[in-house]
Amino acid sequence: MRFEEIIEHKRDGKVLTKEEIHFFIKNYVDDKIPDYQVSALLMAIYLKGMNDEETAILTEEMRVSGKVWDLSDIPGLMADKHSTGGVGDKVSLILGPMIASCGAKLAKMSGRGLGHTGGTLDKLESIPGFNINLSYDQFKEQVRTVGMAIIGQDKDIDPADKKLYALRDVTATVSSVPLIASSIMSKKLALGSDCILLDVKYGSGAFMKTKEDAEVLANVMINIGKKLGKDVKAEVTDMDQPLGMAVGNALEIKEVIKTLKCNGPKDLTELCLNSGAIMLVQSKIYATEEEARKALLTNLENGKAFDKFVEFVGAQGGDTSYILDPSKFEVAKNIIPIYSQKSGIVKRIDALTIGKCSMELGGGRETMEDVIDMSAGIILNKKIGDEVKEGEVLCTLHTNKLDTVSIEEKVIKAFEF
Amino acid sequence: MRFEEIIEHKRDGKVLTKEEIHFFIKNYVDDKIPDYQVSALLMAIYLKGMNDEETAILTEEMRVSGKVWDLSDIPGLMADKHSTGGVGDKVSLILGPMIASCGAKLAKMSGRGLGHTGGTLDKLESIPGFNINLSYDQFKEQVRTVGMAIIGQDKDIDPADKKLYALRDVTATVSSVPLIASSIMSKKLALGSDCILLDVKYGSGAFMKTKEDAEVLANVMINIGKKLGKDVKAEVTDMDQPLGMAVGNALEIKEVIKTLKCNGPKDLTELCLNSGAIMLVQSKIYATEEEARKALLTNLENGKAFDKFVEFVGAQGGDTSYILDPSKFEVAKNIIPIYSQKSGIVKRIDALTIGKCSMELGGGRETMEDVIDMSAGIILNKKIGDEVKEGEVLCTLHTNKLDTVSIEEKVIKAFEF
Repeated sequence: MRFEEIIEHKRDGKVLTKEEIHFFIKNYVDDKIPDYQVSALLMAIYLKGMNDEETAILTEEMRVSGKVWDLSDIPGLMADKHSTGGVGDKVSLILGPMIASCGAKLAKMSGRGLGHTGGTLDKLESIPGFNINLSYDQFKEQVRTVGMAIIGQDKDIDPADKKLYALRDVTATVSSVPLIASSIMSKKLALGSDCILLDVKYGSGAFMKTKEDAEVLANVMINIGKKLGKDVKAEVTDMDQPLGMAVGNALEIKEVIKTLKCNGPKDLTELCLNSGAIMLVQSKIYATEEEARKALLTNLENGKAFDKFVEFVGAQGGDTSYILDPSKFEVAKNIIPIYSQKSGIVKRIDALTIGKCSMELGGGRETMEDVIDMSAGIILNKKIGDEVKEGEVLCTLHTNKLDTVSIEEKVIKAFEF
Repeated sequence: MRFEEIIEHKRDGKVLTKEEIHFFIKNYVDDKIPDYQVSALLMAIYLKGMNDEETAILTEEMRVSGKVWDLSDIPGLMADKHSTGGVGDKVSLILGPMIASCGAKLAKMSGRGLGHTGGTLDKLESIPGFNINLSYDQFKEQVRTVGMAIIGQDKDIDPADKKLYALRDVTATVSSVPLIASSIMSKKLALGSDCILLDVKYGSGAFMKTKEDAEVLANVMINIGKKLGKDVKAEVTDMDQPLGMAVGNALEIKEVIKTLKCNGPKDLTELCLNSGAIMLVQSKIYATEEEARKALLTNLENGKAFDKFVEFVGAQGGDTSYILDPSKFEVAKNIIPIYSQKSGIVKRIDALTIGKCSMELGGGRETMEDVIDMSAGIILNKKIGDEVKEGEVLCTLHTNKLDTVSIEEKVIKAFEF
């Protein structure tokens, strides 16, 4: 088999065979096919697409391209949750303790933030002492005893995705449904989860710009699950505004704590209850989402979900005194209120702009080498539907930087009335 | 400007601007854009195309990517001829002396053969002593005094084409009209010709499989000429069979000599007369093709065209005694007649197969490192329209190889009745 012929077939719109996709992934991971040939194939896939069968085969070949974890000796079904990236998205950190307190098992690998999107790992690391590097055995033991563990990417898992993602990033082939779907699903499935809940975002700052596109991506991923024998469900949610009120690492952990204490933003609490109910049913702990939701609400109210979060943080070496007393988190030196220049009802808050501004305030990375200021970020004071009077505070910038004029000018434009 | 954005624009079917194409070629030649990004753009161009304006800009940027020759101080118009690659195509070697004997100036850079296609340089080098490496000044002087010169590619001319061609070859992006057209035209125009005659081939073994596709390519190249102020004409000719009777280097030179002595195959002589007439009009030596054709025929008959060939070979260091007495050319040790196994009228002779068999007999290269056996090749005894009786000779293999059974089996299948 010659790789040029595989490129030719996809270029001409043909369906690639299992043998062709296997040849591609195996030899690329083994450094036997150069990047300059693979990028031509990626562009052909971008423009000619892949059917569900090809996408599932690609996912499976990527999944087995490196180490594959086996969690089957842990009692119960292993659940995983994935969001396609949002601004202010701290759902996993609330949802995890909620479902674990009801008996589910969350076994999750997370990523770091880049650009306007935050990363779960960074948020967790704003808790002093928190360790994202558990060994395979430690990870399994914690899932078994605590019911949840969140760690960083194991570099030996899915090496095909690492190489492909780096190449897609510089060849304008990121936003392709089969490539996004196989990238997400191969990593998730390599971890050995039984059931996965996906939150596919659409809107400014998301991969998918429209609800229709997000639904297409969601369906492709559900179909991959079907073909590979896994229970995959998906929610399609908008990113017309950041999720909750807080954007930025320590700020978001404080919001997680608030929400687990029944004191969080309504949109965030609702999303966590809905997602949690789906996952408890997927985990076969409850038969219906109604019962599951009731149980989740109970454990929010009686403090069991919060206690589970404390247990989880402690198990991974985090200083739980910060969770019990969030005023211990370091606060940024400059807290700058942004006043509205007009009156009206908020129609939209551009999540991409908010995410970028938070990054510029120090709360995110422009490149993977940047160091994050855990205290930096943005607290929204108004959200969609809120009435605003001229001179009222729209949001508050938290930063240790001194010159924030250009960020202030930018952030105010994120609010549409 | 970021190169990713240029890829994105073409991926989305947009028309690239002059600035974008300049950025691409300039930085690629300067090794500032990696191959893996360029191959993604090439695939996007392959699948989304380029309009005539973009193709002309690409051609111009490639033309000026390296050294550009200036032949304007040679009196008269500089003519060039290009064939998109054929089997048995020795037209330039006959046409050149024909038009030069009528006062035209042929200034030509040629290539070597690879795979099933022969190369003019290899054919010339079958004449002992022939030197394809003239300096810029020697080349110009010979065009001025003899009226024609044919040399190898100057490695400093059109470096963009060299890099792009090598990349296209391994990324399934060769057969794209804008990429083929800009590759051919940029090299031709960098040489400083005033008028160019293109012979665009179609059929098995040619870039373009159908007449319609060949016409599209021809028109794109004519339009490039228009936009860049050059007189470009094109013929579209089929490759349903090899041109003339001889395929292989010394064998073809002997056919060139025969044809210049009015004793060549009819198809070849006709094509040379037609092409020569067009070029004499392009060169403004005759006003009409009829007059031009008459002059060409006269010079074939009175021996002036042949004398010009001898002069040209001598000027470039070739041993003219071989031209005057072609029996001096070394003859292959094995001359194997191929007998027809059936009777009928020849309908088609697959040029790709004949070219590949000639290569396997030693007459061509599989890779650029292979050494050619100048005496090897194939002489056709029958052509399209000829009546053949079972047992008659279809063609004759010339080779110094001993085991030719598999080639014999292949070559006979090239003939369709």
